[in-house]
Amino acid sequence: MSVLEKVSTNKVFEGELTKYKFKSAALGGLDANFNLFMPFNNAGAKVPVLVYLAGLTCTEDTGAQKGGFFGAAASQNIALLFPDTSPRGAGIPGEDGDWDFGTGAGFYVDATKAEYSKHYNMATHITVELPQVIEAAGILIDFKRQSIFGHSMGGHGALTLYLASKAKQYRSASAFAPISNPTKCPWGEKAFNGYLQGGLTEALDKYDATALISKYTDPVHILIDYGTGDNFYKQGQLLPENFLKASRDAGHDEFQVRVRSQSGYDHSYYFISTFASDHIHFHANFLKA
Amino acid sequence: MSVLEKVSTNKVFEGELTKYKFKSAALGGLDANFNLFMPFNNAGAKVPVLVYLAGLTCTEDTGAQKGGFFGAAASQNIALLFPDTSPRGAGIPGEDGDWDFGTGAGFYVDATKAEYSKHYNMATHITVELPQVIEAAGILIDFKRQSIFGHSMGGHGALTLYLASKAKQYRSASAFAPISNPTKCPWGEKAFNGYLQGGLTEALDKYDATALISKYTDPVHILIDYGTGDNFYKQGQLLPENFLKASRDAGHDEFQVRVRSQSGYDHSYYFISTFASDHIHFHANFLKA
Repeated sequence: MSVLEKVSTNKVFEGELTKYKFKSAALGGLDANFNLFMPFNNAGAKVPVLVYLAGLTCTEDTGAQKGGFFGAAASQNIALLFPDTSPRGAGIPGEDGDWDFGTGAGFYVDATKAEYSKHYNMATHITVELPQVIEAAGILIDFKRQSIFGHSMGGHGALTLYLASKAKQYRSASAFAPISNPTKCPWGEKAFNGYLQGGLTEALDKYDATALISKYTDPVHILIDYGTGDNFYKQGQLLPENFLKASRDAGHDEFQVRVRSQSGYDHSYYFISTFASDHIHFHANFLKA
Repeated sequence: MSVLEKVSTNKVFEGELTKYKFKSAALGGLDANFNLFMPFNNAGAKVPVLVYLAGLTCTEDTGAQKGGFFGAAASQNIALLFPDTSPRGAGIPGEDGDWDFGTGAGFYVDATKAEYSKHYNMATHITVELPQVIEAAGILIDFKRQSIFGHSMGGHGALTLYLASKAKQYRSASAFAPISNPTKCPWGEKAFNGYLQGGLTEALDKYDATALISKYTDPVHILIDYGTGDNFYKQGQLLPENFLKASRDAGHDEFQVRVRSQSGYDHSYYFISTFASDHIHFHANFLKA
């Protein structure tokens, strides 16, 4: 088990944000960074944790710096975990050529194509490795009480890791402008054809939120917000309507799956910060139940 | 009068942030950018405005993206104006050599040294030019109701522009970790010796908040927060105690000048965002009076 190294700490609201670094086995031995916010008001007890997955081109810092999450998380006594969006410095040819594939664009899958499968295992990194290294470090988080949310590619990550978890690892999922049906949009097609041996066919069962919800019969707790002024929404990269329709067709009503169209908001962190507190409180319902 | 050009708009909370560009006479004809947040809830009436001055190396985007100001500003129905921190691209030799002088470090003065006096007039840019171009554009801001705040170098700017205004242009001033006595710290010495023909002597009467408050006899409305974990505070760049002592010596009590030491916070926007809402509400008392 790799040892966590503290990179920096910042007090923010009534809590502390710490950046850690460690050698990640899931990412092929590369250094991985993450940020972890711990509320002060835990009186020595373990706190629940909400995992935030960022979008294309982002890092572990983006949500922490721009999301506006800390006030609500501190008052609700919830930890926030911010992983990176891909391995860094794997040295794979072509990895840094595009902003929407490779570095900064891990798409929260475990790659199966030979050239990517050693390093691009963000699904395992987030669902298995980070909880293990954080618990091993003695940090007071109760990983039996986890929820997950994210933005854009990270919204896709949150929905799919939530729905694909047979062990029901996460109690609830929410997303800002998620890529909701990635096998049907250019970003998803590029990522899945690039990372997965079986391409879109392999992706459909594991990494497409719309396909997953259509076969999911147990109750779910999902909240999605997207902005009608979002250019990526207009371009058909997000397709939240497909997810909503598949949810309803599978019997998930508005108490289980809420998809909110927010008039005039775009794809930026200005949009996210507007609804940040809403999403924290949504998850608090389940994390503190 | 230069014409404002819209660069971008983002809906955020219940308002809209617009980035504008114009040819700035105060900055020697260079293009200048600023961000302006307008709350929606103004029902066609003019709204008061709070000017935010950012710190060294920052731009008109930094406070907008990381400050966490919009929720409180929207609910209080206050506009927020985010100027840049210096002219850009003046082409003066040495202007881009240091992070704490020149580009990104205009120090909110009107330069008097020959090589800088054509472009480095941030004091005039903020106090005269921006209100003029915004009013001329027909934007619904009531510049009779202005207050000002800022961070670090911008906190210095806020305090000094507030205290130096004979016309009492601003109703209140606040600052996060301000450079409070710049003639007594390395950042201030470098800036004043670089921009002003008369160096520190010229600065003392016009641009040193501690010197200004010591001679200021009318009532003031000032709030300052700094963090005890702030390395620049520890290094003696901020000197808020000097400002506090000068304020009390000049007869300004705790209702006029509050200087709060915030345990453990540092110089970052994590600190600012923690007290962002506090500062907005402080100014709302005076802007809406």
